[in-house]
Amino acid sequence: MEKEVRVKNTGLRGVKVADTRISFIDGENGILIYRGYRIEELAERSTFPETAYLLLNGVLPGRGQLEAFEDEIRAARHLPGFIVDSMRTLPVKADPMDVLQAAVPLLGMADPDLADESREANVRKAVRLIARVPAVVAAWNRIRQGKEPLPPDDGLTHAANFLWQLTGEKPPADMARDFDVCLVLHADHTFNASTFACREVVSTQAHMYAGVAAGVGALSGSLHGGANARVMKMLFQVEREVKSEDDVGRWVRDRIERGEKIMGMGHAVYKTFDPRSKILKEMSRRLGDQTGHASWYRLLTRIEEEGLREFEKRGKSNIKSNVDFYSGSVYSMMGIPVDIMTPVFAISRVAGWCSHVIEEKFAEAQEKPALYRPEAEYVGHYCGAIGCSYEPVELRA
Amino acid sequence: MEKEVRVKNTGLRGVKVADTRISFIDGENGILIYRGYRIEELAERSTFPETAYLLLNGVLPGRGQLEAFEDEIRAARHLPGFIVDSMRTLPVKADPMDVLQAAVPLLGMADPDLADESREANVRKAVRLIARVPAVVAAWNRIRQGKEPLPPDDGLTHAANFLWQLTGEKPPADMARDFDVCLVLHADHTFNASTFACREVVSTQAHMYAGVAAGVGALSGSLHGGANARVMKMLFQVEREVKSEDDVGRWVRDRIERGEKIMGMGHAVYKTFDPRSKILKEMSRRLGDQTGHASWYRLLTRIEEEGLREFEKRGKSNIKSNVDFYSGSVYSMMGIPVDIMTPVFAISRVAGWCSHVIEEKFAEAQEKPALYRPEAEYVGHYCGAIGCSYEPVELRA
Repeated sequence: MEKEVRVKNTGLRGVKVADTRISFIDGENGILIYRGYRIEELAERSTFPETAYLLLNGVLPGRGQLEAFEDEIRAARHLPGFIVDSMRTLPVKADPMDVLQAAVPLLGMADPDLADESREANVRKAVRLIARVPAVVAAWNRIRQGKEPLPPDDGLTHAANFLWQLTGEKPPADMARDFDVCLVLHADHTFNASTFACREVVSTQAHMYAGVAAGVGALSGSLHGGANARVMKMLFQVEREVKSEDDVGRWVRDRIERGEKIMGMGHAVYKTFDPRSKILKEMSRRLGDQTGHASWYRLLTRIEEEGLREFEKRGKSNIKSNVDFYSGSVYSMMGIPVDIMTPVFAISRVAGWCSHVIEEKFAEAQEKPALYRPEAEYVGHYCGAIGCSYEPVELRA
Repeated sequence: MEKEVRVKNTGLRGVKVADTRISFIDGENGILIYRGYRIEELAERSTFPETAYLLLNGVLPGRGQLEAFEDEIRAARHLPGFIVDSMRTLPVKADPMDVLQAAVPLLGMADPDLADESREANVRKAVRLIARVPAVVAAWNRIRQGKEPLPPDDGLTHAANFLWQLTGEKPPADMARDFDVCLVLHADHTFNASTFACREVVSTQAHMYAGVAAGVGALSGSLHGGANARVMKMLFQVEREVKSEDDVGRWVRDRIERGEKIMGMGHAVYKTFDPRSKILKEMSRRLGDQTGHASWYRLLTRIEEEGLREFEKRGKSNIKSNVDFYSGSVYSMMGIPVDIMTPVFAISRVAGWCSHVIEEKFAEAQEKPALYRPEAEYVGHYCGAIGCSYEPVELRA
């Protein structure tokens, strides 16, 4: 029996709602673990497909298993024609996250396993989602520019192939590897808002696609997946408003004094540095030099330093840079448009969402919550159990 | 400070997560209240548009307000052309709930207020959703049959117009009124799984359409909105398997003894009769006589009686018929196909979803939960904070 906690109006912060075997965060010490493995180790030594396999299956694959898994992803990358046809009907100004949310149920319609709720079928659905969410994002980015979607290139890795299908340019190997690391870093994060939305939806026995579409919706919110794009908007604002880098301190101070946030700083769970942020910071430095955007990196580090100092002064030393602080700059350096950054988050997180959907669907009875069905405290208009008296419309004031 | 409760692995059952002013359930006494008014009173004397106004705005409208609200709904019923074009690309076997989930983000793309997060704009979005969710469901039912969607008829009420657009027949006035009552009965039900999914999604500051698409996903689950269709499937099974009505008792007993559920009986919140069920039971009786389906009503009442007796015998007298037990038969008598029954639930519940989305977005700070971000207990593979040792794939067994 765990410690009892106050729940109401806390957004369930700190409230353990279920057991999980997928990932673990120690927010005090800045530790993130997937299935037992530290995120730093996976970022350095694993790849996104291998990490996705690990998240889905609980163990690292053997060589044959990994090759088979990668083959399955490769085979599933081709989008069914009706999905592309459907996307062609949409307004070109549609937000890519809205397009993705609409496309996920369509991916379900194209899945021959849709009605099969066995574990094996759910893993196959997960593989198709991991393969096709990037294909949808890349296709939409082409369609909205009046271009034809590009076919997948079977000679490219999962990460490289996305950048190719998105931009029409085959990325250098080191950039492709950097993007692969970004996908590893974002692949899971316990019961964040979008993952919890996926679990909530499938707890009703809805299928995986219905759950993942909810996850896309939650991720689209500016407090969740939209944060890296907001960091980029903040960065562009600083570029416009600040004459020299020495004035960044004043800009940051003014902003904090006005009670505004520094985008990409602070986190619901981490009370110290987000372990993913450190890796992305180093990547931003390196890519900045390679791509001629070193000034973005320099500005971000100044904003971060000044932010840390100002928050420290105000007794808020737990507000540190999070995963979103440097990821936007990294994506920009890779040629990813600002409004595709949240979809890129989805391309990675879909591995975690699907793993959590499977955990929710197949957990042992004693650790499986029934359908999530909380209650609320009614504080509204009340005339007792007999109910308020209904006046016909003719008699109302 | 409320009573502290155990939370983990309970599906948040009995856990108050937020304040609400929208609706109230007294599950012990079978009472459901919308904004202070008893559901029985609203079913008898209000209409669905008026009830939707009440849910959204907190008070019953004056005559002019009601007329203006109905005019807005009528004006918004026409679907933007690209949405119909998009639906035409979909496989005709697609489940109507999957089509609806995909269509909701498209409705967002067509909304000129999409990016406006003022309260007024959110109410306008809600009106468009209430108007257009039925239009999508009806259009899909035509498209999948190879027919053209029917235009809305401005001379018909909201309820009658849906039946017309769905079936191509204008319903008799009393049937239209019965359907209107069904919509009133299903319009809200506090923090059920789909409503909570909507709130969870928009708590990230995602827009209303992203939240409502999540609600559609949750409602599609067989433990939630799919239950009335499952009652109909059970009813058809009884029709096939039971030779005379006197054998219904044995059929029910056998089923309960095998540990199977009686569809449409039992509820997470009600421990006595669901107040909506009583109204639907009477409607099923009356419509059964009118439409020549009195045998469905008779069979259902036999199943209910035998179920109540068997559950009582087993000390489970709190398992009573719920809202889904008679609604499927009512919808069938109105000519609504079985796989459109859950979408019909959505046509009504969208009023509640939108009201909850607005409450979530505009609640006072002290009662507004931050973004819902629960935690989980990690019970998986663990090698300590240092992490498990990553073996390169070549070295794995």
